Amino acid sequence: MFGARCLLRALRSCSSAPCPRHRPAARVSVRGALGIQSANGERVKVQGWIRSVRSQKEVLFLHVNDGSSLESLQVVADSSFDSRELAFGSSVEVQGQLVKSPSKKQNVELKAEKIEVVGNCDAKAFPVKYKERHPLEYLRQYPHLRCRTNVLGSVLRVRSEATAAIHSFFKDSGFVHIHTPVITSNDCEGAGELFQVEPSSKIKVPEENFFNIPVFLTVSGQLHLEVMSGISYTEAVEILKQASQNFTFTPEWGADLHTEHEKYLVKHCGDIPVFVINYPLALKPFYMRDNEDGPQHTVAAVDLLVPGVGELFGGSLREERYHFLEQRLARLGLTEAYQWYLDLRRFGSVPHGGFGMGFERYLQCILGIDNIKDVIPFPRFTHSCLL
Amino acid sequence: MFGARCLLRALRSCSSAPCPRHRPAARVSVRGALGIQSANGERVKVQGWIRSVRSQKEVLFLHVNDGSSLESLQVVADSSFDSRELAFGSSVEVQGQLVKSPSKKQNVELKAEKIEVVGNCDAKAFPVKYKERHPLEYLRQYPHLRCRTNVLGSVLRVRSEATAAIHSFFKDSGFVHIHTPVITSNDCEGAGELFQVEPSSKIKVPEENFFNIPVFLTVSGQLHLEVMSGISYTEAVEILKQASQNFTFTPEWGADLHTEHEKYLVKHCGDIPVFVINYPLALKPFYMRDNEDGPQHTVAAVDLLVPGVGELFGGSLREERYHFLEQRLARLGLTEAYQWYLDLRRFGSVPHGGFGMGFERYLQCILGIDNIKDVIPFPRFTHSCLL
Repeated sequence: MFGARCLLRALRSCSSAPCPRHRPAARVSVRGALGIQSANGERVKVQGWIRSVRSQKEVLFLHVNDGSSLESLQVVADSSFDSRELAFGSSVEVQGQLVKSPSKKQNVELKAEKIEVVGNCDAKAFPVKYKERHPLEYLRQYPHLRCRTNVLGSVLRVRSEATAAIHSFFKDSGFVHIHTPVITSNDCEGAGELFQVEPSSKIKVPEENFFNIPVFLTVSGQLHLEVMSGISYTEAVEILKQASQNFTFTPEWGADLHTEHEKYLVKHCGDIPVFVINYPLALKPFYMRDNEDGPQHTVAAVDLLVPGVGELFGGSLREERYHFLEQRLARLGLTEAYQWYLDLRRFGSVPHGGFGMGFERYLQCILGIDNIKDVIPFPRFTHSCLL
Repeated sequence: MFGARCLLRALRSCSSAPCPRHRPAARVSVRGALGIQSANGERVKVQGWIRSVRSQKEVLFLHVNDGSSLESLQVVADSSFDSRELAFGSSVEVQGQLVKSPSKKQNVELKAEKIEVVGNCDAKAFPVKYKERHPLEYLRQYPHLRCRTNVLGSVLRVRSEATAAIHSFFKDSGFVHIHTPVITSNDCEGAGELFQVEPSSKIKVPEENFFNIPVFLTVSGQLHLEVMSGISYTEAVEILKQASQNFTFTPEWGADLHTEHEKYLVKHCGDIPVFVINYPLALKPFYMRDNEDGPQHTVAAVDLLVPGVGELFGGSLREERYHFLEQRLARLGLTEAYQWYLDLRRFGSVPHGGFGMGFERYLQCILGIDNIKDVIPFPRFTHSCLL
């Protein structure tokens, strides 16, 4: 983005010689323009969407926003610029001079010399209306247009920043990022409520199943992360803090009524990270343990495939324990499907544990957004898969 | 990770007073231990997997690796420690003293005082064999164990670092990260070779389709990214470098023979980023343009839904062009399904463009790995969905 400092440097460099009139105007973001403390006629070009139009007898006022700032830039133009095309929602490119604004509402405004309409907007048909604060439920009908509003634009930006922060946290803590698969033949939680994946009828494959076996959208990457606990053997302080340093950030699907959305889960095996300290108890899933262990209220978790065999994960893997797990899987009729799971425990298993955090629930919590559909760029749920 | 510097600091702090014998040994990674320049009997604890066992009359040599380094740490123990359990592949915890090694092969070795087997390994049944350099095709049969080898462990680490670098690049360039959906009702490329997603028979829903319409695994997030070009209006220099600052990093599926794997694509709309300079021409997809525009060989791309209407993306969206697109979609019978796509062009469209890069192809290229299945943690392809 072309910031204010950049612009000032560019302008300063031409201050010793008179700027020729034909020098192209420096492009500046709305944020950059608004950040200039004492505007003095700098020639700039601003691109953005019209957020308001006010037409007076001799002057035309536009507010232009490009997404770089919640605030818009006031454009002041001669009324001769007025045109039906300068409508709410249209995208424009404005060239002119940045000057000190006579109004107290803003420091700076753009005196237009040239206004070009880049993309017309049929403001009557545009579902986003001028000056209206649309309810989130209303905007949900227009997933292709709602990012043009302040609220959704902000939510998506916070989502992006939160994603980056989580990636940074794990990277800085020495974790390895693993892309766990979206398609799986595992039925991890035994829930049976899964989405099946099959080639559409247009694909000609002689077999009944493209992959030879039925496959599903994953409901959890935890088993795949367990596999990856073999990538490094790291600090093991106690069972709930033992680290296999890998994590994933993969969408997961459950088909039950409460979690039918695409969910991005932050999963990791290892030390309890910073952001789980003070994790809201109300959002705590059943498998997270309430530590109640100090001034900072923390939760921790070990998520187990087979309940009651927690001791398998810590300490030495003695033969009798292995056989206990073997028999349990046999009783469930899972021996063949989960031979690999037994294998992990046959060939030098190490203590490991972890937890999952619903990324969207986390976003709801920090943003105060009631409905999970409003923190997902393109939500999918029963009866709805728009776009 | 407990690095060498950390360890030395800890050791220095107790050098003024004699260390009591019962003080717990400081845990150190193999990398940390190997990094100590002049070992002098420091008491440490190392955890890792046994990579080799050599039993002599009076001495037992082990090589222990924890994934923190390609090199292993030599453990020297009295032959009384020898046991059937100390086998290739077992996980162990070794306490002892770090000393200067008499051999020239290594600077430092660990004189064992205590060796605990954490997880036994049935070395006979373990598919990874001592001292063997297994072909990648062989290891592919064991996706749950192959991360224990040097080669796959390294590939997964480079994959993790590359992911982080790409995220950083886009973040530092001011892009917004968008999670594009995995399930979609769009048939983006019109290929018709798609994977359909439906609730498994166990889910009781009265409707034929859970989402009311047929849905598929996405083959491209490009249309969803186009939607998000409405989030910010940014620098537009020329059509191929016009930026709508968002990108995605989502798995995509095609069912054709060459791309049936899960592919992670880096998609973005905007300025051509650094890593596309010198992008190998051999890997250039059809829609990337060869710029041949200077000493640095660059490629660029605009990927269009409707071929031949490239001009729609640049400059002002004139009415006749909109009608051209409208008629084209009508001829293809897509008017209803793509009304949202027309909407984007009705309500203040801005110039935008982008390209996609196959992340796995990129990894293959920088790592010199022939088969794409070896750079994917859990590859899925025809007749195979292991784990």
